Amino acid sequence: MGFTFKKQRHTVDEYVQGILNKDRVMLSKAITLVESQLHSDNDLAGAVIERILPYSGKSLRIGITGVPGAGKSTFIEAFGKYLSSQNKRIAVLTIDPSSQKTGGSILGDKTRMEELANDPNAFVRPSASGATLGGVHSKTRETMLLCEASGYDIIIIETVGVGQSETSVKGIVDFFLLLMLAGAGDELQGIKRGIMEMADAIVVNKADGDNIKRSKLAQKELQHALHMFPPNESGWYPSVLTCSAINHTGIKEIWELICEFEGMMKVKGFFKSNRQEQNLQWMHDTINYHLRNDFYSNQEVKSSLSFLEQQVETEKIPAIVAAKKLLSMFFNKRQLGE
Amino acid sequence: MGFTFKKQRHTVDEYVQGILNKDRVMLSKAITLVESQLHSDNDLAGAVIERILPYSGKSLRIGITGVPGAGKSTFIEAFGKYLSSQNKRIAVLTIDPSSQKTGGSILGDKTRMEELANDPNAFVRPSASGATLGGVHSKTRETMLLCEASGYDIIIIETVGVGQSETSVKGIVDFFLLLMLAGAGDELQGIKRGIMEMADAIVVNKADGDNIKRSKLAQKELQHALHMFPPNESGWYPSVLTCSAINHTGIKEIWELICEFEGMMKVKGFFKSNRQEQNLQWMHDTINYHLRNDFYSNQEVKSSLSFLEQQVETEKIPAIVAAKKLLSMFFNKRQLGE
Repeated sequence: MGFTFKKQRHTVDEYVQGILNKDRVMLSKAITLVESQLHSDNDLAGAVIERILPYSGKSLRIGITGVPGAGKSTFIEAFGKYLSSQNKRIAVLTIDPSSQKTGGSILGDKTRMEELANDPNAFVRPSASGATLGGVHSKTRETMLLCEASGYDIIIIETVGVGQSETSVKGIVDFFLLLMLAGAGDELQGIKRGIMEMADAIVVNKADGDNIKRSKLAQKELQHALHMFPPNESGWYPSVLTCSAINHTGIKEIWELICEFEGMMKVKGFFKSNRQEQNLQWMHDTINYHLRNDFYSNQEVKSSLSFLEQQVETEKIPAIVAAKKLLSMFFNKRQLGE
Repeated sequence: MGFTFKKQRHTVDEYVQGILNKDRVMLSKAITLVESQLHSDNDLAGAVIERILPYSGKSLRIGITGVPGAGKSTFIEAFGKYLSSQNKRIAVLTIDPSSQKTGGSILGDKTRMEELANDPNAFVRPSASGATLGGVHSKTRETMLLCEASGYDIIIIETVGVGQSETSVKGIVDFFLLLMLAGAGDELQGIKRGIMEMADAIVVNKADGDNIKRSKLAQKELQHALHMFPPNESGWYPSVLTCSAINHTGIKEIWELICEFEGMMKVKGFFKSNRQEQNLQWMHDTINYHLRNDFYSNQEVKSSLSFLEQQVETEKIPAIVAAKKLLSMFFNKRQLGE
């Protein structure tokens, strides 16, 4: 015998009031609603987002990435505790690429930052990223807006620097920080190409004990390498700093650098124009996502896709001919009103 | 009084035979057909591409980029002349971003490589890139296939390293070369971020006269910077070479490096797998292009787009709500069979 559990949902007003009242439980529930794959939750989630939108946007959004082993969790914990001691409220959203496969998040992900998670000024939440293109983007973005409406001053979005999610994260944050280790040669190899050039700052972590000298050297080399790149459009030159998350050294300096960045961007107008561009991009990404989703979930397309892919791969038919075959299947069916 | 000129078209057989017979005039005409914006030319162009496909794919495809002033034309001319002296047949396709605005190509673009253009072993052609997303990609790709079927051993695709086209070009070539100048600091600033990491080799041009010492220094610095990057997936470490296109020095070494790359990639199987991935990507790009094109050229979407964009930019409505409004306009109309 099977039971059907109906997920408990609140009204739009209840979610919105809870979020604005800084009720952590309601914030969590609203995030679960936004992340829901259930079609029936879409409209409710959309209504909540629309209502909280005027209260969002006031935080500073920071993306943090780095290879596994760079000490991201320890760093974010130290950084978050420091911010909390400065009376800042911090929300940490972690995007784990492995969660794309299971549909949930890695077990114990939250407990990685146990101390921070128990800080009344902090909110730590693994962000489930859907398996589909654009999914990561969209859900994390909405979660960020909910946290902002709930009065968090700083939103930290953590990704592992080996996947596809960094470009998406870069597209929703104000500041992008790359965490590295000394001994660049080997450790760097896990970082995806292109990520270094996206960074607004690089921090060499684990600059402690025997490792201080190597870290300072890595700092110098990285700074040199970064000078070979063109500056950001805004004229910002990425800096390289060192820190020890376990010893809590260098943390304050990182925060000061971020504040300097924020100040400069606001004066120059880039802070606002960047956010506006990100909003527009969000709209077009959403459109693109739905168009593709509609196409690739079409029954006829699905049944022919892998055969045609194989034909194209082995150069039996031109890619363009295969594409047109699939497109005509899709549009013919749509025009029949199915 | 107005005249209507009917463009003269040939039959599929005539195009195909002309191309296979290495008839330069017919090759040119076939490229014009492929680049045509006329809907009536699409099927004919598709049929030609499909017929020549079995004869394509045998060339080595090289992408060359660099900021204006790096001496791309002079380099390609010297490089092309060298290859011709080695009994290679070379086709040079130049993509000029400014041609996206006028719909044609910059006047005199072809004459920039006059000596090469008059070499019986060479074929120089400015590639008209449509204004629309995916246009650059698709037309240049098909033009490349036509040249291959016409027996060109090496296809060189030239872009200016300041625009959007480099990523597209990277996606259709086997080897990607970045041309630079000594005195990296200033000159580099015109290069778009991310391009350096795409390069399989960097060549410091104008290493002649007083500039030799500076060029050697730039070579060393760039090589150092590149070592900070992870290697390509294939395990290839990008090299930095110097050359003087006007003095024809260093050209042979560049060609030898490219041959080394080709050999290594073929032995390791990356040459083939890269081409297969590119073919698949081409199919999906074509699909994406048509879906987007269909959407953004929809009358209702067009009439509401700029108002909604403005609403989103100023945060009056959430991006996701605006996207959904546009999507429902589009799909409702399509379902009525319009």
